[in-house]
Amino acid sequence: MSQLTAQQRYELITRGLDEVLGGDAIMKILEENERAPRCYWGTAPTGRPHVGYLVPLTKLADFLRAGTLVKVLFADIHAFLDNLKAPIELVKHRANYYERLLIAVMRAIGVPTDKLVFVLGSSYQLSESYNMDCYRLAANVTEHDAKKAGAEVVKQVASPLLSGLLYPGLQALDEQYLDVDFQFGGVDQRKIFTFAEHYLPKLGYAKRAHLMNAMVPGMNGAKMSSSDADSKIDFLDTPADIARKIKSAYCMEGEVENNGVLAFVGAVLMPIIRLRNESVAGGQTLSDGISKSWVSESAPANTLFSISRPEKFGGGSIDYSTYEELVNDFRERKVHPADLKKAVIDALCTLLEPVQKLLAEDEEFCRIKALAYPEDEPKAKKKKVSKKTLPPNLAPYFVKEEGGSAETEEEALARAAADGFEYKKKGKKANVAAVTQGVENLNVSK
Amino acid sequence: MSQLTAQQRYELITRGLDEVLGGDAIMKILEENERAPRCYWGTAPTGRPHVGYLVPLTKLADFLRAGTLVKVLFADIHAFLDNLKAPIELVKHRANYYERLLIAVMRAIGVPTDKLVFVLGSSYQLSESYNMDCYRLAANVTEHDAKKAGAEVVKQVASPLLSGLLYPGLQALDEQYLDVDFQFGGVDQRKIFTFAEHYLPKLGYAKRAHLMNAMVPGMNGAKMSSSDADSKIDFLDTPADIARKIKSAYCMEGEVENNGVLAFVGAVLMPIIRLRNESVAGGQTLSDGISKSWVSESAPANTLFSISRPEKFGGGSIDYSTYEELVNDFRERKVHPADLKKAVIDALCTLLEPVQKLLAEDEEFCRIKALAYPEDEPKAKKKKVSKKTLPPNLAPYFVKEEGGSAETEEEALARAAADGFEYKKKGKKANVAAVTQGVENLNVSK
Repeated sequence: MSQLTAQQRYELITRGLDEVLGGDAIMKILEENERAPRCYWGTAPTGRPHVGYLVPLTKLADFLRAGTLVKVLFADIHAFLDNLKAPIELVKHRANYYERLLIAVMRAIGVPTDKLVFVLGSSYQLSESYNMDCYRLAANVTEHDAKKAGAEVVKQVASPLLSGLLYPGLQALDEQYLDVDFQFGGVDQRKIFTFAEHYLPKLGYAKRAHLMNAMVPGMNGAKMSSSDADSKIDFLDTPADIARKIKSAYCMEGEVENNGVLAFVGAVLMPIIRLRNESVAGGQTLSDGISKSWVSESAPANTLFSISRPEKFGGGSIDYSTYEELVNDFRERKVHPADLKKAVIDALCTLLEPVQKLLAEDEEFCRIKALAYPEDEPKAKKKKVSKKTLPPNLAPYFVKEEGGSAETEEEALARAAADGFEYKKKGKKANVAAVTQGVENLNVSK
Repeated sequence: MSQLTAQQRYELITRGLDEVLGGDAIMKILEENERAPRCYWGTAPTGRPHVGYLVPLTKLADFLRAGTLVKVLFADIHAFLDNLKAPIELVKHRANYYERLLIAVMRAIGVPTDKLVFVLGSSYQLSESYNMDCYRLAANVTEHDAKKAGAEVVKQVASPLLSGLLYPGLQALDEQYLDVDFQFGGVDQRKIFTFAEHYLPKLGYAKRAHLMNAMVPGMNGAKMSSSDADSKIDFLDTPADIARKIKSAYCMEGEVENNGVLAFVGAVLMPIIRLRNESVAGGQTLSDGISKSWVSESAPANTLFSISRPEKFGGGSIDYSTYEELVNDFRERKVHPADLKKAVIDALCTLLEPVQKLLAEDEEFCRIKALAYPEDEPKAKKKKVSKKTLPPNLAPYFVKEEGGSAETEEEALARAAADGFEYKKKGKKANVAAVTQGVENLNVSK
């Protein structure tokens, strides 16, 4: 980024943020210009990432454009601990899934990814030195401080777990072990960040800077349950799914607070176009695989978002070069929710098109996807068998008393599985009788 | 221990205990007789161990006699964390000190030490698998349960530290990682032990048995401050020191509750003689280095303790084959505190004599002692200097303004230290003036 001054790079790094703590340390690195500033953003690879992830990713794109080394931490151990039922291997597949998806998104945005690195938490969070530091932290941090730090981020439950008290400390140590100059996150992380600033120096480590994004309401709005999976837009959703989900999003005419559709324009769609415009202005050629622009072709050069109006309401397009103008127009009902939604649907589909194309052609990604989210794969149709259709070679798997050779149900099932048969019991509890007597209680498929 | 039956070994292991949880699992191992039962007892190697340690050690002697593999865990990481000022290297020296001392004591008691092993906590408590299990525990254990478990053992302070919440879990994992059948400790550990019984199976590990000693009042009694270092009897104290300390111990005539002197006879002195008698009865020859007996030579064979009475009160000795008899006589004032104390002084000196001889001749122990407790080593006599006797070569260490060549006080002190001079400031706060002007404020010694 040699063509940008230190000041310009600093502005790129900090623009649009809700809060910056310790920015002078970043400025110093930029002014000295001897090495790239380094930052980290952490996420737990759990469910399939939805387009809400574009909010932090858009900011990471700014960091990358400013020549920052961006480390994405996949907190696999945390993800595993948060849901002890998912084996750690599954979590690692999910981290792979996230990584390929994130790279594809950065390419679609048109941001260089040579300074984007991915780190698995388990690659260092189980090391001797990290753990000694965990213990040292635990001997310094009071319960009270740990609880306060996690108040906004750790799930608040009636009977809190110890892990919730450990997380703030672990996240602080990550800054040291990832060797970064600043950590980036949502402003909901503020107490975790100030906790880190307070405690790292107590272990003899440097205090890091902290950059915080404003919280952006989800596309599902505040009025819909966040557990409503159908309202989350997956990166791999078809244009029809995307249209359906955005059409059902909460977005009342004239209402600009908690309007996830509007916020998405300001936090994701406009910044991406701005980055593209800056690249073009900087004389760079747009890379292959970058999304097409969703701004009206006839719009002025500095346009960041365009909304077309139906012919019956006058037609044409309104072009916005700032988010504030759009918000004002929406508040004053100059923009109708249906028109806003249509523009967002078009933009998002346009943005995701090369992402989905790239991933669909990536055989390794398809393999990883099946491993990471096997429940989303199309299921092989089970062949129902009755006593009559039971293949004669299944008999040996049944328990001895019934003429088979296996001793217990577990043994019978294991033998059958080893030979490629899958038994699925209908009842909650298995018992030998179910295996030996009722074939109607079993689905056997091969 | 092939000459003992499983039942006899079980009785040896469990005798005199306050409580046994899960004894049937130990009995099963003894009855199967395919391997030695394994146990662990943990201690944090901090200050120099005092003779109060003889209480658990006497019980460990029972375990060893019964053919148990006894693992002594030196919780060096815990010791380090409890006092972050002591560097971990110092703690390791202290563990060495403890180890040699314990072996010497076991030899003096006459117990085989081939099944006595010592393990440093740091040898496994920083490993990947242990730490993964720590995290797994933290994701299962509630704050409430952790706090309850540590209530009697963890220091209760106004602003509790996270480490206090972690300790119960770490101690539970130690059972698994030390691969033992039971853990031994004082009954103050009860809640930690039942916590381990509850949580280890949740990680897929076996529930262990727990053997608990009654709490024995210290030799300093309940009426003296436990922080009174002078009241603690060190294993290396001279007979004169031992006599002085025991003579000043709280031990009121007829008072048997909270009588540390009386309790010491029941928990340490009698069991050791009983073990000796059992060895002799079992046809074993007493090993070299074993303490002489402190029981009156004329006493019957089953005597465990003897108290001589002064000639003016009738003379002769009273011999006890059970602790209860002694307690009754003391309660009924048939035994005077002075006579009891004299008998305990004689017994303890007799017990420690070969321990101290062995350690004094052990050059490696003397070297370790100096490393482990440097503050206890005889100090080089400081040479007091006044302005008049101040060597002229000290001038360069002073700060520039005062005619020296150093820039700051720190620099002056560092230079002087590098040349072998020690500056000791009298005031709480150092300032340049104190170094440069007032030699009367400094002790300089070389």
